[in-house]
Amino acid sequence: MSTTVNSIEPIVWRDDRLHLLDQRKLPGEHVWLDYGQSDAVAEAIRLMVVRGAPAIGVTAAYAVVLAARQAWNTAGVTWKQAMTAPLAKLENARPTAVNLFWAVEHMRQFYMNLADQYSPEEALLEEAKKLHQQDVNANKTMGRLGSGLLDNNSVVLTHCNAGALATAGFGTALGVIRQGYQDGKIKHVYVDETRPWLQGARLTAWELIQEQIPMTLQADSAAALLMASGQLDWVIVGADRIAANGDVANKIGTYSLAILAKYHKVKVMVVAPTSTIDWDIQDGSLIPIEQRDSCEVTQINGEWIAPEKVSALNPAFDVTPAKLIDAIVTEAGVILSPTLEKMQTLQAD
Amino acid sequence: MSTTVNSIEPIVWRDDRLHLLDQRKLPGEHVWLDYGQSDAVAEAIRLMVVRGAPAIGVTAAYAVVLAARQAWNTAGVTWKQAMTAPLAKLENARPTAVNLFWAVEHMRQFYMNLADQYSPEEALLEEAKKLHQQDVNANKTMGRLGSGLLDNNSVVLTHCNAGALATAGFGTALGVIRQGYQDGKIKHVYVDETRPWLQGARLTAWELIQEQIPMTLQADSAAALLMASGQLDWVIVGADRIAANGDVANKIGTYSLAILAKYHKVKVMVVAPTSTIDWDIQDGSLIPIEQRDSCEVTQINGEWIAPEKVSALNPAFDVTPAKLIDAIVTEAGVILSPTLEKMQTLQAD
Repeated sequence: MSTTVNSIEPIVWRDDRLHLLDQRKLPGEHVWLDYGQSDAVAEAIRLMVVRGAPAIGVTAAYAVVLAARQAWNTAGVTWKQAMTAPLAKLENARPTAVNLFWAVEHMRQFYMNLADQYSPEEALLEEAKKLHQQDVNANKTMGRLGSGLLDNNSVVLTHCNAGALATAGFGTALGVIRQGYQDGKIKHVYVDETRPWLQGARLTAWELIQEQIPMTLQADSAAALLMASGQLDWVIVGADRIAANGDVANKIGTYSLAILAKYHKVKVMVVAPTSTIDWDIQDGSLIPIEQRDSCEVTQINGEWIAPEKVSALNPAFDVTPAKLIDAIVTEAGVILSPTLEKMQTLQAD
Repeated sequence: MSTTVNSIEPIVWRDDRLHLLDQRKLPGEHVWLDYGQSDAVAEAIRLMVVRGAPAIGVTAAYAVVLAARQAWNTAGVTWKQAMTAPLAKLENARPTAVNLFWAVEHMRQFYMNLADQYSPEEALLEEAKKLHQQDVNANKTMGRLGSGLLDNNSVVLTHCNAGALATAGFGTALGVIRQGYQDGKIKHVYVDETRPWLQGARLTAWELIQEQIPMTLQADSAAALLMASGQLDWVIVGADRIAANGDVANKIGTYSLAILAKYHKVKVMVVAPTSTIDWDIQDGSLIPIEQRDSCEVTQINGEWIAPEKVSALNPAFDVTPAKLIDAIVTEAGVILSPTLEKMQTLQAD
């Protein structure tokens, strides 16, 4: 592979179909799956063919295009009514990442202003492509803003994958790390393997190796020892939903890292576009936490690692209170030591 | 399997050979390996056919018997000299668990008092069996003492495997959990899967399921979320080496759990026989931490989970400072909120 930074793009619209790089198979296999039906895309989101809050949002926007095509073909001028079921299915695919709801709602608002008597496909496709490009642009802005918070030669730790694969390209947390490395702000990246789905070991390691950014993989439970060694400056992570007060839902283990960081005086940066902020939710206790199938913990690659009778708990996310976060970086600006009041400066309109 | 509590015995001396239950294969396969040479036992310890500090100690004691047999057969009356190389190899098998050095040193002191002109095998075998039985007895005493610290219907979390498989039988942390469950002190056990070697998912889950103790497996990174839920009363773990001041080296991730427990006002209990205490080491900073092969992190069951070029850090242990520990339970008594002074009350002679 000689792919360059910007060419890692997990979501591609081509030949009237949505193409997704199957993230369940990486890094061993590079399999592209393509979709012509919205319901199949909802299932792909549920199964984590595509994952990462911003990437799910962009994927859902394209799925709305596919839903509109089918609605127009089957229902003609009553296509708007025919959108209800496929959009509900999309919104139910995963419960925590708010970008999914945000993107579907954005597309819904957009098509409600379209005429009933023409096919909505072309206009919706343009809008989906706009959201796609906005996400890439937002990532690059966040990369610059986040990098600006770092001292030279910092050592950072990231959890899960908030990279090009989790977004429309470039990445949120990994966007800051890419930019920070280019700027000489980052000299080494530690990567949590991120059980149970191993996004760190499989996806983040893959992205960093492609760009030859110096990295070391470790078990999630080794983070405290690394912090105790005094080598670590920042924990940098993405987010799946941010409450109005700055509480952050992100991959299971983020809350743990934030507590450990506080204990060791390591700083915590959360990087996410404003579409990740749920202004309707006052604090993190109200964010629904997705419980996934226990087989993600009890099996690896379809092989049992635990005894077959074992039951496992598999919460996909946890909530980090704002008081444990040093900076939230969005494309609209940086909030240091977030509070409800400070967060509101990000609210557009 | 209808094995009962006390019949899980990973170390058996039979037909003049040492038999070890291969813990790398559990729970999928039950393979017994048998050894007639001390050097092969040292290699088995290094490869983690047998693991867990007390189990390594008992295994090493039997290996000294095998070394003595070979020394007598090859060197006759100069057998004591011929013991030097095999015992050094045993002591170098793994660096952190002090029980290994303790057991080899105990056997060395014992045979130095034996006559040169007779085969030492029989006397050393009696002594090894004595250590073996003492470990089982110590575990049962610790089980009672630890259970006594718990309120009724407690919910506990354990990390790694400090069970029958990690000892001569019954277990240290898991001994307390066994006894606590019998006593009505424990109603549910959460088990960290314990990456990278998955001792929790493979071994602790297996032991608990056999005894029908209610349990839930989870990713290591989910512990903080569990604590935040307010359900958890105690973290109960074993130890690989305890410094004179009560600092505890144990499986990587223990230090993390102790910090998270402190943050959430959950209590931490360390359960280990006095042979785990290294009186020569003033504090935990002096305990050598074993770094194991990165393939334990990058591969599972021989299959790559990370990209093949990735480098991983794989520290097998970390050190939890005494100030984060509520109780150290030994067969000689319980130390609450350990300090150098309090610990000294355990020192025999």
